[in-house]
Amino acid sequence: MSRNTLLNAGEIGIFALGGLGEVGKNCYIFEIEDNIFVVDAGILFPDDSLLGFDYVIPDFQYLVDNQERIAGLIITHGHEDHIGGIPYLLKQVNIPKIYASGIAVDLIEHKLLEHKGVKKPRIVEYKAHHTYTFGSTELSFIRLNHSIPDMFGIVFKTKEGIIFHTGDFKIDYTPVGPAAEYDKLAKIGAEGVLCLLSDSTNAEREGDTPSERTVGKAISEIFGKLTGRIIIATFASNVYRMQQIVEASYQNGRKLAVFGRSMERAMEIGQQTGYIKAPKGVIVSAEEINKYPPEEITILCTGSQGEPMAALSRIANGTHRQIKAMPGDTVIFSSSPIPGNQEGVNRTIDQLYRRDVTVIVNGPVADTHTSGHGARNDLRLMLSLTRPKFFIPIHGEHRMLKHHRDLAMQIGIDKNHIMIMDNGDVTALNKNSIRNAGRVQAGDIYIDGTGIGDIGSAIIKERKLLSEDGLLSIILTLDPVNKRLLTEPTVISRGFIYMKGNEVITSSIAAKAKEIVNLEFQRKQFTETQLKQSIIDKVSDHVKEMTQRKPMIIPVVMSLTQKDSNQS
Amino acid sequence: MSRNTLLNAGEIGIFALGGLGEVGKNCYIFEIEDNIFVVDAGILFPDDSLLGFDYVIPDFQYLVDNQERIAGLIITHGHEDHIGGIPYLLKQVNIPKIYASGIAVDLIEHKLLEHKGVKKPRIVEYKAHHTYTFGSTELSFIRLNHSIPDMFGIVFKTKEGIIFHTGDFKIDYTPVGPAAEYDKLAKIGAEGVLCLLSDSTNAEREGDTPSERTVGKAISEIFGKLTGRIIIATFASNVYRMQQIVEASYQNGRKLAVFGRSMERAMEIGQQTGYIKAPKGVIVSAEEINKYPPEEITILCTGSQGEPMAALSRIANGTHRQIKAMPGDTVIFSSSPIPGNQEGVNRTIDQLYRRDVTVIVNGPVADTHTSGHGARNDLRLMLSLTRPKFFIPIHGEHRMLKHHRDLAMQIGIDKNHIMIMDNGDVTALNKNSIRNAGRVQAGDIYIDGTGIGDIGSAIIKERKLLSEDGLLSIILTLDPVNKRLLTEPTVISRGFIYMKGNEVITSSIAAKAKEIVNLEFQRKQFTETQLKQSIIDKVSDHVKEMTQRKPMIIPVVMSLTQKDSNQS
Repeated sequence: MSRNTLLNAGEIGIFALGGLGEVGKNCYIFEIEDNIFVVDAGILFPDDSLLGFDYVIPDFQYLVDNQERIAGLIITHGHEDHIGGIPYLLKQVNIPKIYASGIAVDLIEHKLLEHKGVKKPRIVEYKAHHTYTFGSTELSFIRLNHSIPDMFGIVFKTKEGIIFHTGDFKIDYTPVGPAAEYDKLAKIGAEGVLCLLSDSTNAEREGDTPSERTVGKAISEIFGKLTGRIIIATFASNVYRMQQIVEASYQNGRKLAVFGRSMERAMEIGQQTGYIKAPKGVIVSAEEINKYPPEEITILCTGSQGEPMAALSRIANGTHRQIKAMPGDTVIFSSSPIPGNQEGVNRTIDQLYRRDVTVIVNGPVADTHTSGHGARNDLRLMLSLTRPKFFIPIHGEHRMLKHHRDLAMQIGIDKNHIMIMDNGDVTALNKNSIRNAGRVQAGDIYIDGTGIGDIGSAIIKERKLLSEDGLLSIILTLDPVNKRLLTEPTVISRGFIYMKGNEVITSSIAAKAKEIVNLEFQRKQFTETQLKQSIIDKVSDHVKEMTQRKPMIIPVVMSLTQKDSNQS
Repeated sequence: MSRNTLLNAGEIGIFALGGLGEVGKNCYIFEIEDNIFVVDAGILFPDDSLLGFDYVIPDFQYLVDNQERIAGLIITHGHEDHIGGIPYLLKQVNIPKIYASGIAVDLIEHKLLEHKGVKKPRIVEYKAHHTYTFGSTELSFIRLNHSIPDMFGIVFKTKEGIIFHTGDFKIDYTPVGPAAEYDKLAKIGAEGVLCLLSDSTNAEREGDTPSERTVGKAISEIFGKLTGRIIIATFASNVYRMQQIVEASYQNGRKLAVFGRSMERAMEIGQQTGYIKAPKGVIVSAEEINKYPPEEITILCTGSQGEPMAALSRIANGTHRQIKAMPGDTVIFSSSPIPGNQEGVNRTIDQLYRRDVTVIVNGPVADTHTSGHGARNDLRLMLSLTRPKFFIPIHGEHRMLKHHRDLAMQIGIDKNHIMIMDNGDVTALNKNSIRNAGRVQAGDIYIDGTGIGDIGSAIIKERKLLSEDGLLSIILTLDPVNKRLLTEPTVISRGFIYMKGNEVITSSIAAKAKEIVNLEFQRKQFTETQLKQSIIDKVSDHVKEMTQRKPMIIPVVMSLTQKDSNQS
């Protein structure tokens, strides 16, 4: 059994394949004695969808190489940036068991159904009070609050001490679902936490993150003032928000219909798990809404991030099959734009204004959203309750990790006891010390959700090049034996210049190509490879000189044997 | 002389070729009697630089078609979104005179020097007290405050009444430069303004826009607390800000060096025009900074928007030739990210944190920036002083225009007297009425700044396609007369799949192509065009089926005549 050679005897290894230096694709690895525990396997949605991939997953190569030691995959909660990578992980790696809880189990099972051909491991549904033993290590759980139900922090009781991984959390004293287990946090704090790994997403935000309950109240108040149809968009995973929107509709005499595939599924799972309790008759089908006047209708839909194909975007741009936005409607964004999505959200809002729809966004005027991640006071509480000896800020871009470090230092943690890590950086830990132990392979794998699988970074690079200046293909048909061109060079351009109207440029390129071929023919050893390289280099320079642009040059050489060709 | 047929006798035409429904590429047209007045000719920087163009200019076709009636181009101020399109306009259209003032004149002249081969018209340097007469129309100017010196609102006194175009403005009672001419605003208000066109950029922001002076004070206070090197980035056009940074350096015993081409030029122009007055010895050259300890140095640089090639970005990513960021340095962003640039700014900040540099951004903690555009109170004052009969909100996305309309209605302007327009929409106006008169041609022209000129939208579309799924080229060498393939089809892919490892897919595509060719050969009338179309359609379907992707299919048919080829 191959041990991690970066670790000394007795040391615990902690590192991430995703989630450090970025927000998304969380995947943390804990190597304790002979066991590897994988915590979460998420995806990351790119800022820019232009390059034809839908999301990014971690490079799981380390787990492929060490799969015989994997004790299990432990899921903190059911958000895509924590479970979205599971099917891809399972395709590559044999995972004996997945430990997940509540709504996360439903979401994972649904996800695996959608990915045919993935071998489904046993899913162990853990509860707050469960404990699992692996050698001398005990795995247990602490319920915390987040923007999805059933989010648990992960406790490893090891021979060296307690390691606590918070997952994503906020401090919410008036949550919509079950309360967080603050007593357990205090208890491990009293026992002594060797190392805390804590969520840094909002480490730059001062103060407290408002309670989910206050948002529900604000939404109900807004509903009370509106007299037209309400269209409200939120994250499909925020089942608590959905419940509060159902309640607000009920309190204000409105029926609610759900639009958007992921929202419909969330409503179904939310009702199955009991997190959504709709009074009878409140939820109506898409077809039924026409039976009610606008002031008695709430439309709950996807698209709060301006995603082009989501229900709200289609309603905004007029392509939705069933819902036409009209004056009198009010669209409420019960969400905040995730960085990178601001442009898409703005576009959607602008289209709604064009339809004379009133738009309400979260802001100083209306509290229609709150974050699921703790602000600085929440983080202070976590550090104060658990009082760790060593601290690793996780989940966040580099600057967020550093802000979280500074905050921990204010709480009294020694700077040398805090590790700021990148994906792949290995921290080695024992009861006395923490150290940087080196690196393992980590990186980005691009996934085309609809396609045959992953897209290599070289392909992404080619797409980027093609997108910037287009391409120029030069096709040469020649007789390599008799060293003759059989036809004039053909020049084809896409995304570079119009062929029509630029005949001077294209014929100059063809002439250049001919000149290069004739030069190459004069070599003693004429090779196609050499000819192609010359075409790429020299045509590229020639085009740059003429146009100041650098399209991708694709030389195509069609060699016909002498027998094929005996042109006189 | 071709009149605008959309206008009735006596009507004034008002429309935009850019600036309505967007922030950027401002270009407003006023048709008064037989004269066309063009106000500003700007460019727009795209959110996404991936498609290989640098900016967007208005489609000037209307001006090409009506150039004999153009009385002049009037420039409100020297920002790129108001002057950046001038060289492109001049390439297409004969403009008799450009009217510009102060620093805008320098910036335009510099711009025209950079664009060789553009015929430079006479630049008339107007002053606040000047008046120019065109038939029965009088052109005059009102100085207002903005984030660049010498910003003027444009007054047309016409037979029908006064039309006032604000340009970009904020209300600043303690400006760094000359005061705004509020008296003139009140005066035209008292005379009666027929139509006001007013800046809507900040129509969604409640309250007042803070004074430029408060930012200078805050910056000087921050400087006073810092003990290491200061690197401060701002907009190169904000000469007032630069002046205040020079002052803050002087007050705190620091020398200041300027980095970044546009910032160096701005410093030069600012000193020439007298807007920047640096105490002797404060400004030092790039080479001299090494002579001073870090606590005596301020580096003023470009890159406040995270632009990849700007000085700050290079300092952050370690590729700057002269400046290496190091622990102890403080980077101050005296700016706010323009929508679309947030990601780039975040990337720069993250890189700076990796170098253990302290970063200060504008926010609740530090007032390091203020907008040049008036918030809602500023807009209320403009409307209240000028008391227009008709109102056209300009400069802004559709929702900003509508917010500005709502605000004007609160001030007491009749909803029917307010026009919400898109680029190309023509408003016709006389002393009694305002109406929508139809449309003229308007749109986006993509410019590759380093290239041979404009890039058509079809080219942009091709680049977008190429960027999404790459390309697949199928090369067929055939003898059309004898209806024979001379070689096996060659398949080339870029940005689609790796050729290596996917031989099954490529050979299946080649086989499909062969099958298509043989089918086409069976037609009575075999044509290359028909063959290419069949390849595109059928290979596309075949590839979609195999891979779920839709690369661009580029068929290449090399026809060799019978004489070329007599394969047995």
